[in-house]
Amino acid sequence: MQSTHEFIASQKDRFLAELLDLLRIPSISADPAYAGDVRKAAEWIAENLRNAGADHVRLEETPGYPIVYGEKMVDPAAPTVLVYGHYDVQPADPLELWDNPPFEPVIKDDVIYARGACDDKGQVFMHVKAFEAMCATGNLACNVKFMIEGEEEVGSDNLGNFVAANKELLKADVILISDTAIIANDIPSIDVGLRGLSYMEVEVQGPNRDLHSGVYGGAVANPINILCQMISSMHDEFNHITIPGFYDGVMEVSAADRAAMAQTPFDLEAYQKDLGIDTVYGEKGFTTLERASIRPTLDVNGIWGGYTGEGAKTVLPSKAFAKISMRLVPNQSSAEITRLFTDHFKSIAPKGVKVKVTAHHGGEGYLMPTDSIAFQAASDAMTTTFGKEPIPTRGGGSIPIVALFEKELGIKSILMGFGLDSDAIHSPNEHYGLFNFYKGIETIPHFFQNFADLSK
Amino acid sequence: MQSTHEFIASQKDRFLAELLDLLRIPSISADPAYAGDVRKAAEWIAENLRNAGADHVRLEETPGYPIVYGEKMVDPAAPTVLVYGHYDVQPADPLELWDNPPFEPVIKDDVIYARGACDDKGQVFMHVKAFEAMCATGNLACNVKFMIEGEEEVGSDNLGNFVAANKELLKADVILISDTAIIANDIPSIDVGLRGLSYMEVEVQGPNRDLHSGVYGGAVANPINILCQMISSMHDEFNHITIPGFYDGVMEVSAADRAAMAQTPFDLEAYQKDLGIDTVYGEKGFTTLERASIRPTLDVNGIWGGYTGEGAKTVLPSKAFAKISMRLVPNQSSAEITRLFTDHFKSIAPKGVKVKVTAHHGGEGYLMPTDSIAFQAASDAMTTTFGKEPIPTRGGGSIPIVALFEKELGIKSILMGFGLDSDAIHSPNEHYGLFNFYKGIETIPHFFQNFADLSK
Repeated sequence: MQSTHEFIASQKDRFLAELLDLLRIPSISADPAYAGDVRKAAEWIAENLRNAGADHVRLEETPGYPIVYGEKMVDPAAPTVLVYGHYDVQPADPLELWDNPPFEPVIKDDVIYARGACDDKGQVFMHVKAFEAMCATGNLACNVKFMIEGEEEVGSDNLGNFVAANKELLKADVILISDTAIIANDIPSIDVGLRGLSYMEVEVQGPNRDLHSGVYGGAVANPINILCQMISSMHDEFNHITIPGFYDGVMEVSAADRAAMAQTPFDLEAYQKDLGIDTVYGEKGFTTLERASIRPTLDVNGIWGGYTGEGAKTVLPSKAFAKISMRLVPNQSSAEITRLFTDHFKSIAPKGVKVKVTAHHGGEGYLMPTDSIAFQAASDAMTTTFGKEPIPTRGGGSIPIVALFEKELGIKSILMGFGLDSDAIHSPNEHYGLFNFYKGIETIPHFFQNFADLSK
Repeated sequence: MQSTHEFIASQKDRFLAELLDLLRIPSISADPAYAGDVRKAAEWIAENLRNAGADHVRLEETPGYPIVYGEKMVDPAAPTVLVYGHYDVQPADPLELWDNPPFEPVIKDDVIYARGACDDKGQVFMHVKAFEAMCATGNLACNVKFMIEGEEEVGSDNLGNFVAANKELLKADVILISDTAIIANDIPSIDVGLRGLSYMEVEVQGPNRDLHSGVYGGAVANPINILCQMISSMHDEFNHITIPGFYDGVMEVSAADRAAMAQTPFDLEAYQKDLGIDTVYGEKGFTTLERASIRPTLDVNGIWGGYTGEGAKTVLPSKAFAKISMRLVPNQSSAEITRLFTDHFKSIAPKGVKVKVTAHHGGEGYLMPTDSIAFQAASDAMTTTFGKEPIPTRGGGSIPIVALFEKELGIKSILMGFGLDSDAIHSPNEHYGLFNFYKGIETIPHFFQNFADLSK
């Protein structure tokens, strides 16, 4: 891969400059106010992909944001790699906690600070640049197809239909995704598991209008008090989730696998120090690594109601709201959990309030076999560039589309990510190391070569 | 009182027009953005009081908003009435629920809609106009002192010092306040009890930054989940408040008094219909009227944390907040309850979170004896103008300054209010009936005459 390596080395500064351009586009898919910017990011990616050497590059329109498609078919006999990623990003608030504006990237101590730096613009762009390097040096050993969407952060609502409707177009031997993390820059790892997701929004209404808490307080159901009681009741004293049937589908992990997980390098003290907490907190009977990967969760992602301004207002509000999401493990059905949550939440509402429950988005968990040639190709590629064999790990995040790819296309995905859990994705001051960005660009061509060789 | 009555009748339209001018000033004391308007309201009141015939009208400066003072001493031998009220108003949000802008008063079906229409601009202004009528017709039978503050909605923080420092200036035989409600326009009543208040704000912090709920969910304390648990734990299954010692000071009401309360006209069905609820909700073993008057409460007035925007964000937030207020009954000490709440809230915080508790404002409850000549004067005045003897009732609201007046000045207060519980004070579309506004102006001179006569 010498020449590819040299090409990358010679273009490092341009690759970075281009990424910073992409990061300047506030492509927040959750907020309609940024619709124009989301589309702009799609067009930017398409243009860059075209310049990198891809053919048939186009925006595949959907009822939501477009999917960027492009391909390079070098040899009918060669295997085909479908690269998936997303160009949309999470909302940036709370803005006041950012050290620099989230869409004005800053590089400090070899780290890029910007919303999307790691999730996923920085990582998907590594593929575009690695692809450019392989094309430019005639080292592209596999056929490549790119499918880069703009709705990953809001549930990939339209990607499913696109995939189902374009099975022929998307035919491939493996799907390669960089949207996950390694344990540390000197401890490479590959995610072989993902959690599923059910994301709900609830509304509790008491009286039909805001009331004076002196005149009515104590005599009328306060929707905030009630919402707190309902949320509180969904965990027991062992931090088990109390929704009936919630654990029915959970695939229990064998003692052997748990023992293996326990061998994963993990520094609890450093973990707590990084988060500024004096202790971890979670389901009884499981370690922190297990709680964050092989166990389902229920977290309130947002709550609001009543007077939240300065000073004091003695109001008994009419309504209270919460966004509540559950991370699911392989074999839990998101649709089923969404149904169980909805039924349970309505069932525990006391008289005196009305509740509304709506589902935002969801998706299934995923487990990747480690005995595939795709996993071997990824493992060997990282071993080459990191000088260390990567550890198979199970991540806590969700890429719902991965399970859907397997269901619709019958193709397995490889999660060869280069981020770090400490990259603060979804948080203020999201960042991505230059080390990781360049290491990814360098590793991807090895994957292609290995996968082509192993496929022979 | 004929000529006073005639004068009022002849000036009705002007009185109303002046009130609407006052209501156009957004004197929201809780929000520093309106500081200029709050002061403007003070100056407006002072000017109007001066024109009404008061002497020595001035703004008494405080570290916060000024207190409007004015007086009319007609006869050293006559008793002196100190009129107290406030020119500040509650915040108007949620604005989208108002049918007309809160500070652009509208009159519909003989009802004035505006923030402050009833609480308390409309009611305090009745006194200014009744005073004007008595002066203009030479029927002022008592000396009068006005003390109209601008910080009632935020705890009257500076009025206490002003009162303590001006005992001679404020010397009076009774304090007359119109900041409460009657049962109905055809069922006059006089508040003989008020609840106290402790208003707290709490902050729960988990991790030092917002986190990805997939990467950390289930392994790190979620401050919203925890806050909900802590709030939920402060009521038991009977809706008793669980803060240790919370009920120690509570003055239990005798069975006889409770039986008397049960005779107060109250239509539960109409009450529920007005609020759009299918059932009332509160402390076991007490009626709705009791829950809203003779029993203490704990209500969350506001809660916020995490992502509250459109769509879905899978964030595990760093912090969650709530504003929590407790209504207290006579003999419960606000300072003691504030201490008990603070200690308890900190004590129930689980490991893994940090909590902050701050007190906004508070005040003591109050009980007015019904055997005083002041009460008699008020009761007779309402009997004259309503044609019905008013019923003594205990209100659920708080006017903390009333207990302070008695403590500092040794003067009892008469709560002769003319609003209705359904006036939506502190709510969108606050309103005040023209019937109530004019009935108040008509009744007040009778109180003055009765009080002078009974004092002889």
